[in-house]
Amino acid sequence: MAETFVIAQGGGPTAVINQTVAGATLEARRRFPGCRVLGALHGVRGVRDGRFVVLSDLPEEALRAMAATPGAALGSTRDKPDAAYCDAILKGLKQAGADAFIYIGGNDTAGTQGILADAAGGRIACVHAPKTIDNDLVENDHTPGFISAGAFVAGAFLSVDLDFRALPGVYVGIVMGRHAGFLTAAAAAWPLDAAGAPHLVYVPERPFERARFAEDVRAVLGRHGRCIVAMSEGVADAEGRSLVETLVPRELQERDPHGNLRLSGSDLGQAIERILAEDLAGTRARVDTFGYLPRGNIATIDETDAREAREAGAFAVEAAERGGGSVALQFDGSGTVCRLVPLDAVAGRTRHMPADFLHPEENRISDACRAYLARLLPRRHAPAVPFV
Amino acid sequence: MAETFVIAQGGGPTAVINQTVAGATLEARRRFPGCRVLGALHGVRGVRDGRFVVLSDLPEEALRAMAATPGAALGSTRDKPDAAYCDAILKGLKQAGADAFIYIGGNDTAGTQGILADAAGGRIACVHAPKTIDNDLVENDHTPGFISAGAFVAGAFLSVDLDFRALPGVYVGIVMGRHAGFLTAAAAAWPLDAAGAPHLVYVPERPFERARFAEDVRAVLGRHGRCIVAMSEGVADAEGRSLVETLVPRELQERDPHGNLRLSGSDLGQAIERILAEDLAGTRARVDTFGYLPRGNIATIDETDAREAREAGAFAVEAAERGGGSVALQFDGSGTVCRLVPLDAVAGRTRHMPADFLHPEENRISDACRAYLARLLPRRHAPAVPFV
Repeated sequence: MAETFVIAQGGGPTAVINQTVAGATLEARRRFPGCRVLGALHGVRGVRDGRFVVLSDLPEEALRAMAATPGAALGSTRDKPDAAYCDAILKGLKQAGADAFIYIGGNDTAGTQGILADAAGGRIACVHAPKTIDNDLVENDHTPGFISAGAFVAGAFLSVDLDFRALPGVYVGIVMGRHAGFLTAAAAAWPLDAAGAPHLVYVPERPFERARFAEDVRAVLGRHGRCIVAMSEGVADAEGRSLVETLVPRELQERDPHGNLRLSGSDLGQAIERILAEDLAGTRARVDTFGYLPRGNIATIDETDAREAREAGAFAVEAAERGGGSVALQFDGSGTVCRLVPLDAVAGRTRHMPADFLHPEENRISDACRAYLARLLPRRHAPAVPFV
Repeated sequence: MAETFVIAQGGGPTAVINQTVAGATLEARRRFPGCRVLGALHGVRGVRDGRFVVLSDLPEEALRAMAATPGAALGSTRDKPDAAYCDAILKGLKQAGADAFIYIGGNDTAGTQGILADAAGGRIACVHAPKTIDNDLVENDHTPGFISAGAFVAGAFLSVDLDFRALPGVYVGIVMGRHAGFLTAAAAAWPLDAAGAPHLVYVPERPFERARFAEDVRAVLGRHGRCIVAMSEGVADAEGRSLVETLVPRELQERDPHGNLRLSGSDLGQAIERILAEDLAGTRARVDTFGYLPRGNIATIDETDAREAREAGAFAVEAAERGGGSVALQFDGSGTVCRLVPLDAVAGRTRHMPADFLHPEENRISDACRAYLARLLPRRHAPAVPFV
């Protein structure tokens, strides 16, 4: 029976990732009285370097306060370990006396766990617990962190719609999402009425054409007198080149050590401002890049999201007992349940929006997407429709 | 006794401007049973064109639902009326049989009311009710709309601080505010701890120097391992030229019909990204432009703000009985009170942050500013301090 657990957090923080740490710690203590739960600082980096805090020593009250706090209390990392790095992690886990390693993150994290599980040969149970505001993990109906970030985006678009009814114009809100449009689509969760925002949705799953964009905006302006657009930072043309790559001067493009183009800056917003200034000259147009604001925003932590993240942590302890794997949040037809799936079913894969989540011709979401959002993000506000 | 009230909303919407409309309507009905309250659509434009809704016919429930909704339910306008326009407004007021005209807005709105009051010669009571997220009205301790927008900004900086403790780097959040830095300073209302964000604050009230900025950021990075910056869109150099004017290529600058440079775009954010890439090469740096997100955000409506906005509306009806003027929210040493001040005391003036709200040498707020923020924005969250 596992008696020493190591827990780490990887990738971008969310509003509820600490719930998963707390859920795992409390469940480990419940199942294995006297067990040790070590929190590694800054993900696998802390495992490698032997930097831990002893979570099992903390009073329940402190764990619950941590759980309710956005961000990653243990720190995080963007490291994607290669074979040598994985050896060092494994060494770190052995030195800590780990029986199980629970790593909370996205599909890169599942990949790291897959390598470690192979190398550990069953001596250490390797568990991946899901986390990402992008909602792009296969095998999952949705992922912890998505609902809270979605609540921020949905509320922001509802608020901007009210603002732009008062002072009309074109508004484009650019939302995080490199490969998957779920968080951008969440903009449509709480429309004010039948004419509610967003009127147009552009996601990485569908090629973006500049001429079509201007045409779309003009048509909505004609119909509603204003046009509110939700756009993913990862929108790309038919050849799969992101707009940042095609619209931003090459010398201003920035890449990370893995060669990924940085999308989270002001460049795309500025490029869209230029397009609107040229193609819709004379129309008031504003572009906001939401950037980091939805990711772990303390104002929009969702109760369901928090509970599910906590349950995923608790289930990760059960998963360790069962030998490891990836914890998946699945929908059983009536509610969300945790299930254990193989690590290699999740690692290295990206879940995209299903084809039927987009209207077949128009750049907006479908009824199927609307139903999905309504299930995850039930309406939270009941604003009055303005007189204008 | 006044029996027909006309109410209008001007300038940028806020989270609570509809409270002022509802407060005035309910108070007018209470004081003058059988009175008519007309809401002009899109500010003075609706008065001029005779476009009204009859607010006094609405059930109280509908008024309260409108009050709780951000944005401007009657629509707004950016028109700054000249003499001929004012004549047309006056004609519109007379045709509507107005005994009083309550116009909710900023100092431009007070200016319009001043002209109208002179032209009306006492036959129509002209009242200005305060509204602005910029908090830049003289005679006011603070203005309706500021606290809610401030709550968004304060929560966002607290959240970003947590995010950047997990994945360190430099973060700059650019906040609306052309001439006054109050809303940017609100970023400092809820610091996590003594090392809490924002570490640096740049406001229009103090000249911005690029070399000093890089130096400041480097010093904070050395101290805390991360650096979170709150910056006003209106920051300017020692000659008073805004950064947008000095850093953004002239052909990309956009001006409104009044000749004001548009600040609310992605240009400043991109310019700051370039500065950081050049002056702090190799450091992870992210810049978010908050744009419209704080202005009327439904997720951060503040109860005190809502109540004060409603009270300002009710007091505007009393002010009409007293012949007109500008409603000011003042601090009497223990709480906020509404007082009536002359229109020309408010019109055309901008309230800046008091000199003692900034640290004399360093680019951060002072204890005096902290005390002011603590009074208006008492702490709403109790997050746990991360282990990193």
